[in-house]
Amino acid sequence: MLVLVVNCGSSSLKFQLIDTNTENVLASGICDRIGLSGSILKYKNNGGVDDKRELTMEDHSQAISFVLEALTDKKTGVIQSLDEIAATGHRFVHGAEYFKDSVLVTDEVIKRFIECTPLAPLHNPANLMGAEACKKLMPNKPMVAVFDTAFHQTIPPKAFVYGVPYDWYEKHKVRRYGFHGTSHKYVSQRAVEFLGLDKKHHKLIICHLGNGSSISAIENGKSRDTSMGMTPLEGLTMGTRSGDIDPGVLEYIAEKEGYSIKELINILNKKSGVLGISRLSSDFRDLLDADLSGNDLARLARQTFAYRVLKYVGAYCAVLNGVDAICFCGGVGENAKFIRGMIVEHLKFLGITLDKEANNVCGKEVVISTKDSPVKVCVIPTNEEIIIARDTREIVAQLG
Amino acid sequence: MLVLVVNCGSSSLKFQLIDTNTENVLASGICDRIGLSGSILKYKNNGGVDDKRELTMEDHSQAISFVLEALTDKKTGVIQSLDEIAATGHRFVHGAEYFKDSVLVTDEVIKRFIECTPLAPLHNPANLMGAEACKKLMPNKPMVAVFDTAFHQTIPPKAFVYGVPYDWYEKHKVRRYGFHGTSHKYVSQRAVEFLGLDKKHHKLIICHLGNGSSISAIENGKSRDTSMGMTPLEGLTMGTRSGDIDPGVLEYIAEKEGYSIKELINILNKKSGVLGISRLSSDFRDLLDADLSGNDLARLARQTFAYRVLKYVGAYCAVLNGVDAICFCGGVGENAKFIRGMIVEHLKFLGITLDKEANNVCGKEVVISTKDSPVKVCVIPTNEEIIIARDTREIVAQLG
Repeated sequence: MLVLVVNCGSSSLKFQLIDTNTENVLASGICDRIGLSGSILKYKNNGGVDDKRELTMEDHSQAISFVLEALTDKKTGVIQSLDEIAATGHRFVHGAEYFKDSVLVTDEVIKRFIECTPLAPLHNPANLMGAEACKKLMPNKPMVAVFDTAFHQTIPPKAFVYGVPYDWYEKHKVRRYGFHGTSHKYVSQRAVEFLGLDKKHHKLIICHLGNGSSISAIENGKSRDTSMGMTPLEGLTMGTRSGDIDPGVLEYIAEKEGYSIKELINILNKKSGVLGISRLSSDFRDLLDADLSGNDLARLARQTFAYRVLKYVGAYCAVLNGVDAICFCGGVGENAKFIRGMIVEHLKFLGITLDKEANNVCGKEVVISTKDSPVKVCVIPTNEEIIIARDTREIVAQLG
Repeated sequence: MLVLVVNCGSSSLKFQLIDTNTENVLASGICDRIGLSGSILKYKNNGGVDDKRELTMEDHSQAISFVLEALTDKKTGVIQSLDEIAATGHRFVHGAEYFKDSVLVTDEVIKRFIECTPLAPLHNPANLMGAEACKKLMPNKPMVAVFDTAFHQTIPPKAFVYGVPYDWYEKHKVRRYGFHGTSHKYVSQRAVEFLGLDKKHHKLIICHLGNGSSISAIENGKSRDTSMGMTPLEGLTMGTRSGDIDPGVLEYIAEKEGYSIKELINILNKKSGVLGISRLSSDFRDLLDADLSGNDLARLARQTFAYRVLKYVGAYCAVLNGVDAICFCGGVGENAKFIRGMIVEHLKFLGITLDKEANNVCGKEVVISTKDSPVKVCVIPTNEEIIIARDTREIVAQLG
């Protein structure tokens, strides 16, 4: 079955055409700067085409139409006709408590999803634009929604409740939801296979470290806790996001600098994290270079990042009452060997020893703890698109 | 040497007269509702007097004058004359980065301490009122300031920096300071003696659990991290304080309910924590009773509280790369055996087994882990006054 996986941001649209029988990617790419000047379609296929074209894309519908053209084009295409695509699978960000699993997109689903918009005002409307564009261009093709929040819906109340008036939860849905669920699901499932763990009895800590970062505690295939909260701002110190911070700081800085709450949260989302500490960059490669050249704040930003990861790893060891494996994924988790090293060096109390040579490997599945470590540490490149394709296949197959 | 220990809130004044040679408390008590109707002096001495009197106290000076009268009174007194008091020792809350240790109170110290007031607008002015009252009534008596924040000044930058614009630290002193330092210092020192640990090489986690709660990671006598932050609002879910929360919640609730930042932070300080979750009480004894009677929210509040403690214990195990002992203190830590049990039951991965019988003991020094546990767990009732008296003695002795 061929599934077109679609992941929309407000001005971007990523896609992959996946054959779910082989799990091969036939074609993939991104439409960037949709609705802006200089919009671009980058397109690759498994026949060696690697293309980049400036095209006017006024909205997501126009972007999708270019993607569909490229997929069926005589030169660049990988299919003869759109009929070969069985369904589209969509990344939907915030499903609140309504969506505990992936679902077929119906009018009712759209209605519920729009109700979740106040919880993710930037992401959910963009996700919808992608679904609407597909509906317009391929009206009878089934669409499946795969939520970032769904995998974390197994987190128990003691872990998802905040210490705030309970009315905020009942009336306004304030609670921890968590994000990157599709990534945490993929990596935790793959880790069980890769490490040969018991499918029904395992304890994992998944560190998804990128520009946005989150950690999860997984027990027997289910998420038990995760570091992001009601929004993706909580938890780790990220590229530009603050992560955990004393809420008292907000009142104090609002008074000192005259910011509104909106301005403050915008700063915490866009000008904070390792960018804020280093005053230099949100990119960990820049920070490594600067650190090696003696930049103290770049060093402090890297140390703070690693330290916060370490604290969550420790916390989730206690949550799970022990751990079988710790897995790194995401751009930083898969590539930043020094950051991985800084974290693992502090986990000797779990009996872990870092295999320094193995840790030199980047972007590949690899065990980076020594053979005698009772707790395994590994790198598992994430693959959210595969989960979206698999869930889409499963739901569409049930349609008969 | 006799030291009068003074601990002032905005409308209260607690005191203890301590003989630092024997560390005996000769007299102790509290002036409550200072400046309000129905002000009261509660006074006890070591000769069996246990007194409670309504007295008009318009300010802290008047309160101190009643305390000094009671201390020298023929019936209730424990000293003949105020000359027998060598010095007064004062709890000062927020010393920011200026004060890394206790100091003799001078005009310069007062000036610096006033500069720290924006960081603790409720506490610091109250502390000053106590010092000013003592200066007025005993003008030539040395006064020593013991800061809640000082013991945590050894926390390294990677643990005290927030992931926010670095300017906020440089210009506005935004960083983690931590509180309850005097308690963490006392309990960590006492734990080393009580458990017979190596004075120079030890790793401890101190859980100060009360209406306000904080946890610290102690390595070789020094604080390496603590859960409270720039203000006492961060960290654990407390009696009425939220502790850690997604900062994104604030913008969302401000919009939903029309609160200002000031109103929101006030709710997070006074109407949140286990009170907010349970809608019932900030008192853990009430919550236990309600839980046992089948109140689901009281149960959730207790579970959430214990869960957050557990996460910090795990995090600090990783920070310290292992731990020798975990110590409970504070009203809840010393008495709430069920809460202790809930936490320790989840630490089997450290080899800890709870000694259930020992854990029945309340308010006394006791080891509550079994003999074969490689990590010891114990209860150590805290004693902040003794640390204030000791520091005062030491500093006054240096005056010659």
